[in-house]
Amino acid sequence: MRVIGIDIGGTSVKFGLFDDKTLLDKLELPTTKDLTEVIKKGINTLSPLSELSGIGVTVPAPTKDNYMFHAANLPWSNMNVKEHLSKELGFDNIEVLNDANAAALGEYHFGGVFDSAVMVTLGTGVGGGIIVDGKVLEGHGGFGGEIGHIQLDDKYNFECGCTATGCAETVASATGLKNLYKNYSQKELEAKEIFDLAKTGDEVAVKVTHLYAAYIAKFCQFLSVIVNPEIFIIGGGVSKAGEYLLDLIKEEFVRINAFKSLDNQEFKLAELGNDAGMYGAYYLIKNK
Amino acid sequence: MRVIGIDIGGTSVKFGLFDDKTLLDKLELPTTKDLTEVIKKGINTLSPLSELSGIGVTVPAPTKDNYMFHAANLPWSNMNVKEHLSKELGFDNIEVLNDANAAALGEYHFGGVFDSAVMVTLGTGVGGGIIVDGKVLEGHGGFGGEIGHIQLDDKYNFECGCTATGCAETVASATGLKNLYKNYSQKELEAKEIFDLAKTGDEVAVKVTHLYAAYIAKFCQFLSVIVNPEIFIIGGGVSKAGEYLLDLIKEEFVRINAFKSLDNQEFKLAELGNDAGMYGAYYLIKNK
Repeated sequence: MRVIGIDIGGTSVKFGLFDDKTLLDKLELPTTKDLTEVIKKGINTLSPLSELSGIGVTVPAPTKDNYMFHAANLPWSNMNVKEHLSKELGFDNIEVLNDANAAALGEYHFGGVFDSAVMVTLGTGVGGGIIVDGKVLEGHGGFGGEIGHIQLDDKYNFECGCTATGCAETVASATGLKNLYKNYSQKELEAKEIFDLAKTGDEVAVKVTHLYAAYIAKFCQFLSVIVNPEIFIIGGGVSKAGEYLLDLIKEEFVRINAFKSLDNQEFKLAELGNDAGMYGAYYLIKNK
Repeated sequence: MRVIGIDIGGTSVKFGLFDDKTLLDKLELPTTKDLTEVIKKGINTLSPLSELSGIGVTVPAPTKDNYMFHAANLPWSNMNVKEHLSKELGFDNIEVLNDANAAALGEYHFGGVFDSAVMVTLGTGVGGGIIVDGKVLEGHGGFGGEIGHIQLDDKYNFECGCTATGCAETVASATGLKNLYKNYSQKELEAKEIFDLAKTGDEVAVKVTHLYAAYIAKFCQFLSVIVNPEIFIIGGGVSKAGEYLLDLIKEEFVRINAFKSLDNQEFKLAELGNDAGMYGAYYLIKNK
C-alpha cells in the first residue's frame, strides 16, 4: 500500500509518500493560484499515480464529508475537493479533511493507543481537533473542534479575526500571550521571549505565563466534561515551551477541575510538528 | 420485537414496554434497597421475559460500556450493570447508559431526523447528552456530556454539589435561576414564579431571566464550536418556560456566536418530558 498525504496551506503545500508503516519521502511546494497543477506536480514527483492506493488531502477551511467551506487564503473555496481532484487526476480513493482536524488525527494515531484525544494547537491562532474511537468529529457544518472560537474571556476583550471578541484565540494563542504580556508590561515581545523570561523568574513574565496557562486549562476543563478525551495533545509553535508550559496547564487544570477522577487527566506534547497534517492526511486513507 | 426501557432514578424506577414503533404500556415503582427485585417485578408486570428481545437500562451515574461509576442516591455503584442483570434475569440482550445521555438519545430519535444533537436538561441541576451519528458520546471515563460542570461563571461563584464553584449548574439550572434572582432581589422564588413575573414585565425578573438565558447561550456557544450539533434540544423542568426562554437563548446565542453561518443554529424544546430516559433506554436496544 502506498499513500500520499497532502497538507495544503496558504503559503505552501506539503506532500508525504507513505507505505503501510512509514514516511518514505516528502516534498514542499509553494502554493500558487493554480493549486490543481501544484498538486499534480507534487504527486508526480513522488510516485506514479498507478502505484498509489489512496490520496489524503487537508485544507485550511472547515470541511464536511469532503466538501470544503470558505477558506480565507486559498484559491479554492466552497467546493467538493474530492470530486474536483478525482476528476482532475482520474483517481478515486481520495479523502479530504480540515487541516487542524487532520493534525489531530495524525498525532492521535502516531502517539500511542488512545480511545479518544483532543489536540490543541497553539500557534498564531488556536486550532483543535477531536478524535473519538478513531473518528474525527467534523460537526454538522464543519465547525467540530473549532475550539479557538470558544468565548473564553470577558475580561480583556481583545478582538478576534472572526469578528467576535473574547475567543480563546485572543488569549490562548501565541498572539494571545503577546496580548496579555503587553497588557501588563506595555512591551511587545514574542511568545518564545516571554517564556524564556518567565523561566529566569521575571515577575511579569511569570504572572503572564501562569495566566496564559490558566486560559488553556480552562478550555481543556470544558472539553473534559463535554468530550472527556483520554488525552490532550498540546501542539503548535507555543508548545515549544515544553514541559514548563505543560506543567502550568496541568496544575491549573487540577485546581479548577470538577471531578476528582479527572485529576489524573493525561496531557502530552505533540510529536509531529509541522508534519502532523500530512500524517493525518495519510491516516485518513490508511484507517478508512 | 418487544423491548422494555427502564429508567432508574433515586426515587422511582420507570418501565416502558415498546414494540418496534410505540410505547404500549408503562409502570412506575418506588426505588428500594433491593433494586434488583424492583426491576424483576417491573419487568414481570409488563411482559414475560421470553417475549422480550431486549432490555435497555439507564442509571443516574456516569457510565462506560455498561459499567456504572459512583451513584450518589442508589444502592448500586461501581458495577457492571449489564453483567449483574444478565445473571440475575438469565437474559442476555441488555444495554446500560447514563440517564442524561439516555434522555438525549430518546429526544434525538423521537424528535426528527438529525445527524447530531446536544440535549441540555435544565432541572435541579444541568444535565446533558451528546449524540453524533446516532451514537452517544460517553467519553473516556463516562464524563461525556456532563455539561453541568463546565466552569461557566467566575462572577457569582455559587457553590456546586460537585465541590467546585462556578459550574454551569450553579447559574443555569433551576437552582441557578433562584440563586441569581436572590442575588438581585434578596427574595427567594421558584423558577416558575420568576419566569411568570418576567412575563408580566417585572424589572428584576426580566433582568435575571435574560442573564440566566445568557449563561445557557454561552455554554451552547462552547458546544457549537466543539461538537457543532445540528440541533440543541432544551429540556428539564425549567424548559416549561417554553418559547419565552427559547427566544432569549437564541437571541443571546446570535449575539455572542463567532461564525455567521451558525446564526441559524437550530434550538427546540424537548418533547418527551419525564419519559425521555425510558425512551432512550428503548432506543439503546432498537438502534443497536
